[in-house]
Amino acid sequence: MKKIKIAYIGGGSKQWARVFMNDLALAKGLDGEIGLYDIDREAAVRNQKIGERINEHPDTVSKWNYVVYDSAEEVLKDADFVVMSILPGTFEEMRSDVHAPEEYGIFQSVGDTAGPGGVLRAMRTVPVYQEYAKKIQKICPNAWVINFTNPMSICVKALYDTFPDIKAFGCCHEVFHTQDFLCCVLAEELGIEKPNRKEIYTDVSGINHFTWITKAQYGDVDIIKLLPSFMEKHYDEGFYEHGDKNRYKTDTFAYANRVKMNMYQTFGALGAAGDRHLVEFMNNRWYLADKETVDNWKFALTTVDFRIKQMKERIAESIALAEGTKAVEVKKSDEEAVELMKALLGFETRVSNVNMPNRGQMKDMPFGTIVETNAVFSNDNVSPVTGASLPTAVKNLVLRGLYNIEDCYEGIKERDFGKIFTSFINQPLCANLSKERAYELFSEMVVNTRMYLDGYYDVDGELARVKKQIL
Amino acid sequence: MKKIKIAYIGGGSKQWARVFMNDLALAKGLDGEIGLYDIDREAAVRNQKIGERINEHPDTVSKWNYVVYDSAEEVLKDADFVVMSILPGTFEEMRSDVHAPEEYGIFQSVGDTAGPGGVLRAMRTVPVYQEYAKKIQKICPNAWVINFTNPMSICVKALYDTFPDIKAFGCCHEVFHTQDFLCCVLAEELGIEKPNRKEIYTDVSGINHFTWITKAQYGDVDIIKLLPSFMEKHYDEGFYEHGDKNRYKTDTFAYANRVKMNMYQTFGALGAAGDRHLVEFMNNRWYLADKETVDNWKFALTTVDFRIKQMKERIAESIALAEGTKAVEVKKSDEEAVELMKALLGFETRVSNVNMPNRGQMKDMPFGTIVETNAVFSNDNVSPVTGASLPTAVKNLVLRGLYNIEDCYEGIKERDFGKIFTSFINQPLCANLSKERAYELFSEMVVNTRMYLDGYYDVDGELARVKKQIL
Amino acid sequence: MKKIKIAYIGGGSKQWARVFMNDLALAKGLDGEIGLYDIDREAAVRNQKIGERINEHPDTVSKWNYVVYDSAEEVLKDADFVVMSILPGTFEEMRSDVHAPEEYGIFQSVGDTAGPGGVLRAMRTVPVYQEYAKKIQKICPNAWVINFTNPMSICVKALYDTFPDIKAFGCCHEVFHTQDFLCCVLAEELGIEKPNRKEIYTDVSGINHFTWITKAQYGDVDIIKLLPSFMEKHYDEGFYEHGDKNRYKTDTFAYANRVKMNMYQTFGALGAAGDRHLVEFMNNRWYLADKETVDNWKFALTTVDFRIKQMKERIAESIALAEGTKAVEVKKSDEEAVELMKALLGFETRVSNVNMPNRGQMKDMPFGTIVETNAVFSNDNVSPVTGASLPTAVKNLVLRGLYNIEDCYEGIKERDFGKIFTSFINQPLCANLSKERAYELFSEMVVNTRMYLDGYYDVDGELARVKKQIL
Amino acid sequence: MKKIKIAYIGGGSKQWARVFMNDLALAKGLDGEIGLYDIDREAAVRNQKIGERINEHPDTVSKWNYVVYDSAEEVLKDADFVVMSILPGTFEEMRSDVHAPEEYGIFQSVGDTAGPGGVLRAMRTVPVYQEYAKKIQKICPNAWVINFTNPMSICVKALYDTFPDIKAFGCCHEVFHTQDFLCCVLAEELGIEKPNRKEIYTDVSGINHFTWITKAQYGDVDIIKLLPSFMEKHYDEGFYEHGDKNRYKTDTFAYANRVKMNMYQTFGALGAAGDRHLVEFMNNRWYLADKETVDNWKFALTTVDFRIKQMKERIAESIALAEGTKAVEVKKSDEEAVELMKALLGFETRVSNVNMPNRGQMKDMPFGTIVETNAVFSNDNVSPVTGASLPTAVKNLVLRGLYNIEDCYEGIKERDFGKIFTSFINQPLCANLSKERAYELFSEMVVNTRMYLDGYYDVDGELARVKKQIL
Repeated sequence: MKKIKIAYIGGGSKQWARVFMNDLALAKGLDGEIGLYDIDREAAVRNQKIGERINEHPDTVSKWNYVVYDSAEEVLKDADFVVMSILPGTFEEMRSDVHAPEEYGIFQSVGDTAGPGGVLRAMRTVPVYQEYAKKIQKICPNAWVINFTNPMSICVKALYDTFPDIKAFGCCHEVFHTQDFLCCVLAEELGIEKPNRKEIYTDVSGINHFTWITKAQYGDVDIIKLLPSFMEKHYDEGFYEHGDKNRYKTDTFAYANRVKMNMYQTFGALGAAGDRHLVEFMNNRWYLADKETVDNWKFALTTVDFRIKQMKERIAESIALAEGTKAVEVKKSDEEAVELMKALLGFETRVSNVNMPNRGQMKDMPFGTIVETNAVFSNDNVSPVTGASLPTAVKNLVLRGLYNIEDCYEGIKERDFGKIFTSFINQPLCANLSKERAYELFSEMVVNTRMYLDGYYDVDGELARVKKQIL
Repeated sequence: MKKIKIAYIGGGSKQWARVFMNDLALAKGLDGEIGLYDIDREAAVRNQKIGERINEHPDTVSKWNYVVYDSAEEVLKDADFVVMSILPGTFEEMRSDVHAPEEYGIFQSVGDTAGPGGVLRAMRTVPVYQEYAKKIQKICPNAWVINFTNPMSICVKALYDTFPDIKAFGCCHEVFHTQDFLCCVLAEELGIEKPNRKEIYTDVSGINHFTWITKAQYGDVDIIKLLPSFMEKHYDEGFYEHGDKNRYKTDTFAYANRVKMNMYQTFGALGAAGDRHLVEFMNNRWYLADKETVDNWKFALTTVDFRIKQMKERIAESIALAEGTKAVEVKKSDEEAVELMKALLGFETRVSNVNMPNRGQMKDMPFGTIVETNAVFSNDNVSPVTGASLPTAVKNLVLRGLYNIEDCYEGIKERDFGKIFTSFINQPLCANLSKERAYELFSEMVVNTRMYLDGYYDVDGELARVKKQIL
Repeated sequence: MKKIKIAYIGGGSKQWARVFMNDLALAKGLDGEIGLYDIDREAAVRNQKIGERINEHPDTVSKWNYVVYDSAEEVLKDADFVVMSILPGTFEEMRSDVHAPEEYGIFQSVGDTAGPGGVLRAMRTVPVYQEYAKKIQKICPNAWVINFTNPMSICVKALYDTFPDIKAFGCCHEVFHTQDFLCCVLAEELGIEKPNRKEIYTDVSGINHFTWITKAQYGDVDIIKLLPSFMEKHYDEGFYEHGDKNRYKTDTFAYANRVKMNMYQTFGALGAAGDRHLVEFMNNRWYLADKETVDNWKFALTTVDFRIKQMKERIAESIALAEGTKAVEVKKSDEEAVELMKALLGFETRVSNVNMPNRGQMKDMPFGTIVETNAVFSNDNVSPVTGASLPTAVKNLVLRGLYNIEDCYEGIKERDFGKIFTSFINQPLCANLSKERAYELFSEMVVNTRMYLDGYYDVDGELARVKKQIL
Repeated sequence: MKKIKIAYIGGGSKQWARVFMNDLALAKGLDGEIGLYDIDREAAVRNQKIGERINEHPDTVSKWNYVVYDSAEEVLKDADFVVMSILPGTFEEMRSDVHAPEEYGIFQSVGDTAGPGGVLRAMRTVPVYQEYAKKIQKICPNAWVINFTNPMSICVKALYDTFPDIKAFGCCHEVFHTQDFLCCVLAEELGIEKPNRKEIYTDVSGINHFTWITKAQYGDVDIIKLLPSFMEKHYDEGFYEHGDKNRYKTDTFAYANRVKMNMYQTFGALGAAGDRHLVEFMNNRWYLADKETVDNWKFALTTVDFRIKQMKERIAESIALAEGTKAVEVKKSDEEAVELMKALLGFETRVSNVNMPNRGQMKDMPFGTIVETNAVFSNDNVSPVTGASLPTAVKNLVLRGLYNIEDCYEGIKERDFGKIFTSFINQPLCANLSKERAYELFSEMVVNTRMYLDGYYDVDGELARVKKQIL
């Protein structure tokens, strides 16, 4: 039995924490402490209680000691793993990220990575990450840091740039969904039962939420070669790997893969993220021009009102679970974080996709930038796996996204709104804005969310400086 | 006296040929034959006659033997230099290149490099270049090939990709104008007489018509540092290095450098091409949104009607010069082609900007792509000079342009409209088009110009294939 | 049950074939045909008979159809896997490879990779590999080619250079032995039972027989950090992972790891091959100066006389096994080839070390050269894993070996003895030779083995040319 | 008239300073102050007096103000140029560098760059350079630093590594001699008068004292192609560009280019340094095996006794010049330092070879290491020119030298004798040493020269540590 301490930064999480506690409850051979820290202490305490109820569940294999901490410093002390899943700002900030651009003709399906929303969210999040990186360097430099916070790439960049010897990686399940999609293709085209996604091999490369599959094999079957025939049947109506093709009408997270199929037809490579993410890396006229276009491509724009409603339900559910008015369930999720932790502890060797600094895994991209490829997880080690080269047109799009992140990161690090603005206006989603309108939108969004920026930036000074400079 | 043979492909040129003959007439120590070949034989004969009149001029130092050839093969035979300056298609094709996109909200100031016009022009020109490269390989593999044809980068790419050992480079005078601009800055800020552009040193890197100056020195004066003060005075009204700041109103080739100054303010690097070119590498909402915007930025859209009118005047002038009703003048131009030829013949060592395959001169760009930097011209040799790294945001824009060219070239080489279309729709100027509209425009432009495409592409088949695939 | 065809080139192999047949007999879920082809047909027939006896063994899980073929073309037809394990030339050629240099003060412990022996062996082997690559391209382009022939790197180079789309990799078990060594370190230093080598993670990078371990983890134990204490105890007397530290006295393949430990002390990185191989990449005065030095470092020089004797025994044993006078055994070996094949067939995902073209896995080494690192084996795919950077001094030594291989390969490909000679004289083992003596040795060795060279090279002409040129 | 201040570190130089003062006296348009600083103040005062006599010479164009300073800080104050030419240690240290290895069978012709002498000299010099770099950063960060001190590459490395924004380059005239050699080839083969070396173009790349010419053009004449015929005539007897082919017998700095020609025959590329330097980058058995071999290759080993004698003569001459008992001469040398300074001041653009950090000029070598290629000197700017790729075998040798320098530099920077020793034993000239003998030699040389090391290294501790570690 390995005894470890996991420090959970953002440990009041309403959804992901529960999935994680669940999977840890089933992690044979592993136990110890799960330290919860959240600026919303109450939420952390709720998760502690839910954790204790999970401990009591008959299916639970590993019982954990749930501890709520009052400071980041305390929770990091002696940590073997640090899990980071935070969201600086409230729904009001998120409302600005997602909806303020709509007045400017920019619709965002997610608004957390690329596009104007992604830039603003990065502005709030990266300074916090810089501080965490310094704390980790000081308190638990040997801990493995697993990042779930978006925008993924720039958060991981901040960790490595601030503390170069950090042992960190970013996890994202978007690739998994695309693997599920490919399994559906397999099942239909070969007339077999749908295999588990772990039975296929995919070669992935790109950047988070804009990752690409250049190879997909099931035994000696090249799944990519099955796509044309599959698309012939499903392109018009769409196809959803997790349910009905029209579910996007009622489920804001669903999509019919019409975008993914269209991009495959166009570029000859398959995007390995949900359609809602892929579209945000393309010029806004392609798939996000207006609500009708979005509907036609069969995906949905997730509103912040919906997120607020969802959060209320989740809190209610958390309370019910914590107080025992609702029974906890203990069953393995499709997430891999716990498996990766076990691999790092030497239980097994595992290959999964990961966001890490480029050290050769994508030889056509600049070294040191954060890319997403497969990696081998083994005893206290993560080694990225080299990916095949992307088609030229795709390489171009990925590089654009990647350098936007680099540029945005430089700007945030130097607290220079001028640089941040160049990354803002070069977002594909901002392609229809004049400089003037782009500045207007940028400054509006900055002001909306300044409560979380003033501590780090000279907001008024920088806005004025950029205005003078650029207009 | 060195005796050489220069093969002039496109030797019926109405303007550039004359400049070139002029400069050759003053090339001390050099004479021989100027072979003229043009599909418009009559025009070549006119230039021959003008050449002969230049020979008679008292200021002429070197008298050349002007010969008109009936085939490319003949003119290439025994050539020491091959000058290429061609324009496949007529003004009707150019009208489509430049003006067809206007219906789609896309205005082009030049339309010969980036943007939809650049792609179509490449489609007509590159197959011809592939054929020329093969002929040069066979007939005069040791000749130096000097390219003036646009789109510059993709033409040079075609030469090297088809005949890897070719000794070719592309010449463009846009950087010269920016050097002139910097000399004006110097003069005004230091209160000195305007120096000659050759007295300053500029470090340039980028791609043709989207080259950047990262360093500009006059003695130990860093000219870049003088820009803010200069801009303070001239930003609002503009400044034109060759004359009045409002000349753009009457001279379609003039511009007031407001774009250049604005881009410098935004990115911290100075574009080294005329504003009319720079704008075509930016999203179409920035500087080319509509005619009012263009006017506000103080440059002009060159119409094809104007070019037709200009051409008529030039032909008339050519006839007058050829027939002797107008006197020829012999005076040195600001162009450098003849100096570069003399350097290659061992008369001197010279540094000038040049378009060539990247062999390290821009270490952040993929090797083998065509980039524009300085190069040292010396005895039978051109060695590119390493350029400083560009700011991240600029690197991003340059890479986008560069990979668009790579992608377009691959598509043309493979005669694959699908790939060409991905480079078309990824043009910054096409950023406001939906895929459907982009296809509509692309197919319309292809059909308009198909007379010059049918010999190389399966136009109907490919259009149908792409339509099915992408929509 | 997957039915596959394995083409075994060199299928008369006396030892390795038997190991392989054994492991295949235990490969659950896999059967089909093992095609044997060897220029020594008799030996192949013997292996066929042994195979049939293995089929009869009660422990056998998978029964294979053993077929002897009369030509490479026939055995390759319909092959899913091609196993290559050949030895062009006889023991007389090998005697020259290994022992001819002794007269020149050059002792070789193996003589099959680096050093003069490696160069000559490459000269005989690479032309044969060029021919096989062409046959594979024509007959079974989709087959996976597993190479076991030495010199490993240059054979894999020849395969990829001749047929760039080949699916080939080279397997070598030297890294396994070093992993065993590290398990011994673990056991002793932690006072635990020796783990299986697959329980530790090693990060390897380098070139075949000169691979390096830069990271070795057992859970969160950094095994590298245990080395100093382990060495303190064992450096003087040595330590052998497979038995007694003095076994090298009686077993020519044994060694006491004194070289490996000494190199670790010197360079700060652990060589991941047997001492007998490592020493051949170092100047000949270090570990191979003379027999006394060799003995002092506690390894042995394998003589060709011994190999002849061993071969006779192996043939006798083969006959006995084939005729049934000796009973076959069926038990799993430590080799991984069959596991890798199963991984490629989709049975599992597996990480193992492999020789393949560099596509980013060693970013400090030139792309396209053959390097050895980990790779992920999965459904019909092998993706190299990025390795950590090597210490500067080690990088220097590895690059020297790697460019010697490139240079030698170019020379063989161009049938140019001049280039081959530059790779010969730059071998570390040749460091004590004057150019004259090096040429003398080279030409002597070439003549000794010319029966296997005359078909490919103009031996006399090239020797004379190089002599004139270099002396 | 430009007024500048030149700070001369090592301003007591007996030879180079005089050449430099001479060239400055003829530098039209330039004057100001030459600040002399030397730990041998007396020598600096002598140069000051010589300078004043030069000022009085009728041919002198520019009169300089010669000032002797008592500290580095003072001489650096307000400097526009810093010239560095120092020699830490006395002839006794140099005697050890050059001659101590002879007991070990290692003969060095120069002993200042590669080989054991180069390593020890680097150990004395680099710490001093680290201090100078810091002073320059503090006192005159915008000054151009011209380095003449050997070992060249590692000194320039120390400057850039310590102060990354330094404007420094290293100058060496060895390439000039090879250019002279090529002019002799031209003259003889074409039957023309020997041109000036500046009339030919050479493409150079490599590292200092081991630079290579891959292209040499005189007009459209490829000089390289003339070499075989020239060598046919001169290979056996040798040829010296500055005089009689047998001058090496009486002039220790002369050589007959037999090595250079032999290396060209072997590698297909022409070394661009004197034979005395080239041989030190090759295994010691090639050209330096013993005195007879050296004599056979027609170059000389420069003894320290000779250097002492020469120095005495030079001092006597200096005194005579300073006191006026010998008349000063004022005539232009073949050195280029003053021309380069004038180019940097904007007088002209100039291309010359230079040692600088690799930023793409040698794309096959690691970026950031110090390489020697051409560069363009212009207004306050030096931009390296890209060089052609070297043949594989040469690339291998250059990389070995380059990584030895990197390794040695790391060791010196970290004051780690272990790393320094790995660079010592990997010197080609040390290839015949066992590790034990190499350590013996290394420690002997360290002890010989410890007076100049003790201030920087824990000499006894490190020697003991390495001994224990490595043996």
